[in-house]
Amino acid sequence: MCADATRLEPVLARIDAALPEATGRLLEFLRIPSISTDPAYKDDCTRAAEWLVTQLRALGIDATIRPTSGHPMVVGHVGSDTVNDTGSDTGGDPGDGRGPHLLFYGHYDVQPVDPLDLWDRDPFEPAVEDTAKGQVIRARGASDDKGQLMTFVEACRAWKDVHASLPGRITFFFEGEEESGSPSLVPFMRENAAELNADIALICDTGLFDSAVPAITTRLRGLVGLEFTIHAASRDLHSGMYGGIAINPIRVMARLISGLHDAQGRVTLPGFYDGVPELSDEIRAQWQGLHFDHERYLADVGLSVPAGESDRTPLEMIWSRPSCDVNGIWGGYTGDGFKTVLPAEAHCKLSFRLVGSQDPQAIHDSFVKYVKDNLPADCTVTFHADKGSPAAQMATDDPAFEKARQALSDEWPRPAAYVGCGGSIPIAGYFKDILGMDAMLIGFGKDDDQIHSPNEKYDMESFHKGIRSWARILDALTRPEDAG
Amino acid sequence: MCADATRLEPVLARIDAALPEATGRLLEFLRIPSISTDPAYKDDCTRAAEWLVTQLRALGIDATIRPTSGHPMVVGHVGSDTVNDTGSDTGGDPGDGRGPHLLFYGHYDVQPVDPLDLWDRDPFEPAVEDTAKGQVIRARGASDDKGQLMTFVEACRAWKDVHASLPGRITFFFEGEEESGSPSLVPFMRENAAELNADIALICDTGLFDSAVPAITTRLRGLVGLEFTIHAASRDLHSGMYGGIAINPIRVMARLISGLHDAQGRVTLPGFYDGVPELSDEIRAQWQGLHFDHERYLADVGLSVPAGESDRTPLEMIWSRPSCDVNGIWGGYTGDGFKTVLPAEAHCKLSFRLVGSQDPQAIHDSFVKYVKDNLPADCTVTFHADKGSPAAQMATDDPAFEKARQALSDEWPRPAAYVGCGGSIPIAGYFKDILGMDAMLIGFGKDDDQIHSPNEKYDMESFHKGIRSWARILDALTRPEDAG
Repeated sequence: MCADATRLEPVLARIDAALPEATGRLLEFLRIPSISTDPAYKDDCTRAAEWLVTQLRALGIDATIRPTSGHPMVVGHVGSDTVNDTGSDTGGDPGDGRGPHLLFYGHYDVQPVDPLDLWDRDPFEPAVEDTAKGQVIRARGASDDKGQLMTFVEACRAWKDVHASLPGRITFFFEGEEESGSPSLVPFMRENAAELNADIALICDTGLFDSAVPAITTRLRGLVGLEFTIHAASRDLHSGMYGGIAINPIRVMARLISGLHDAQGRVTLPGFYDGVPELSDEIRAQWQGLHFDHERYLADVGLSVPAGESDRTPLEMIWSRPSCDVNGIWGGYTGDGFKTVLPAEAHCKLSFRLVGSQDPQAIHDSFVKYVKDNLPADCTVTFHADKGSPAAQMATDDPAFEKARQALSDEWPRPAAYVGCGGSIPIAGYFKDILGMDAMLIGFGKDDDQIHSPNEKYDMESFHKGIRSWARILDALTRPEDAG
Repeated sequence: MCADATRLEPVLARIDAALPEATGRLLEFLRIPSISTDPAYKDDCTRAAEWLVTQLRALGIDATIRPTSGHPMVVGHVGSDTVNDTGSDTGGDPGDGRGPHLLFYGHYDVQPVDPLDLWDRDPFEPAVEDTAKGQVIRARGASDDKGQLMTFVEACRAWKDVHASLPGRITFFFEGEEESGSPSLVPFMRENAAELNADIALICDTGLFDSAVPAITTRLRGLVGLEFTIHAASRDLHSGMYGGIAINPIRVMARLISGLHDAQGRVTLPGFYDGVPELSDEIRAQWQGLHFDHERYLADVGLSVPAGESDRTPLEMIWSRPSCDVNGIWGGYTGDGFKTVLPAEAHCKLSFRLVGSQDPQAIHDSFVKYVKDNLPADCTVTFHADKGSPAAQMATDDPAFEKARQALSDEWPRPAAYVGCGGSIPIAGYFKDILGMDAMLIGFGKDDDQIHSPNEKYDMESFHKGIRSWARILDALTRPEDAG
């Protein structure tokens, strides 16, 4: 790293020195109540977008407000005039755009603040508070996502302050509807695909693995959700007159649900595990090194025993194995007291979490076939497909991933890990599907940030080391290959 | 029967001759809107009770109104001064009270009439209507239970007209709260147990097996009902973060429900079939002779295949075999759309129909043990027992049953059968439990009587042959053994 120290170290020093000003800017940003879901805050959302444009322009970035039918997007570009379009490493000074063309995504809108009486302060009057665990920035949006977004902007500012220009070609892309379902996002991405095209997306909306271990989320589970109804008799029956002779659709439903898993907790649908990869030895070693405290993870919600496939580790159950869950069930009499009804119908909402290259449509079809094949006489079934998206697995063999992981490892007490996310993060899928690029999900949030809840906070350590982390990553991704 | 013909035949002739007057009295009774569940009809209920007292007194019966905290009871006695208490057959003329002491039960209250616009006439302006299937008496209560109740009263009236007295010791017991849950019935029976004590109860509130085959209902299934909740995590979870590692209580519930039956449709609970008797050859032959049209029975509700134990006949499934049904189930997200929740709880209402001497408490306990024994780690269960009553099986070896069955067979085109009732008829259980006597459930209703629905009717044939049936039964039960 000797050759690069002169490039990176002054930036890190600048970040440390300018932290008070950076914090002040974040507090200013946090004072704008940009609640996207509530029309009363429409002007505030626009104001937050305008504030970001001002920040970016101060860094020499060509940034503009881009109207949508909802809240505006902010798009900015830098380095595009000084590099060739391939973005390949052709040597030269740090400011001339070597390395991949990066796109940084964040969102400036925040969640509503109800219940307001559970807040210890005005959610839009932010402050730095001293706590037993250190300083925190307290406000709605402090962690999700204004604080995280600003870690990248402040890293760029420090770089600009030191080197007079940013280290490569970067597109900035901010939306204001993430907390209200992102209705304008996909249309905007499709309409502006050429402009938004880049080599890799950077997204700062996730968390650390724990306070010592940074993480790059490289795998997100996909989802197949559907609702189905078993129909039996033409009307609800009296269980005295018909109990024993008439088929009970709730019993049919229970048998179908019960048959979806075997004794080892594996899903029994034919072909279900097609496309489910085994972990590489490298990732398995990384995850073992995380010493995931599944007992605490489960104890936090009143549980103690991992309930998935009996031959899998707890982290595998959440990050790298598919699952099947009933999300809702209803049928018959569900009110107070008792009614000896033999119901005509039973209903179920069910979803599969997918990994690897599992095909949502194939799994949907396999489930439909399973239900139809196992439907007893006199029953019919109707299906309503609700959601379907494949899992996302980033191409970590792209050297950029390993460079970023090393850069994070240099900043934090312990090495960074490639982690999974049991849920879906739609934006990552959109970048892949619409713009054909992988996303690097790197964030500095902590489990106790209380995002979406009263008293949201962002640790000052997350903010400070987050800015430093991005400086290191910018350096790593744009550093000439032969340096060092 | 030669010796008895002179006793019975004039009564039957009198019934035939006086049918117009009997019908007129029933229409008068039907004009009283004695809807027990609606306080607006309280005075009408009392008026119906008073009307019955007048009818009974006209037959020389010592009848009185008996107030309760709800609608009044009507109790009348006849023959008590002229017989010894044992009621045994000691010979003598038909009027002196030989044969068992009978108690006849019926109810004078009726169901509400909503929706009124679906009636083709005022439900309390009864009329005899000509239909394609013959004459019917159309009004609320025509079948349930005023018409049925009056078959017995009119049989007594004809007997009295011909023989100047009734043929034995008879207690009349009418209530006015049957359609509103009979809140006063059990307390009244307990408080007046000595007065209501008799040898056998006659209840006219059931139906013919079909229009040619009369029936005595001799077995009623019992009931164990309970609600249970499976508790898992301390709160609803996100299926992305926890799907695969956290236990899903709906899946646990489904497996428990699914495990309650084996592939042959038998209930798997240990000890469940203790006390379930096999049919006698005689009853089996009777039921085979009924040629039960299970295809029509099921087709009426959109089904086609008997779904119970694979080695049992359809009539056994309903009348003589226990069953287990889920009456309601709910858990998780059940609204519109989709929510990837992993619920904290799942709920179920479940009931068992019992036969023979199955013990409700033992079955409740066996089910509770089954659930607890099969509960996975991290789950707890809470139970709420709702209902429990044993099955009722009448002592058909009491010669009175066979006498009544023969008497019915003499009246109708085909022999009478001892049938079952898949549901419970609480009053029969009360007579057994509180007064220690079996009940003979004999009625003349038809499946298309539309009781509890608009346009309720009672066939004139049911009314006429019903009166004649009771005359034959009264004769058969009080006939000297050595006559004939």
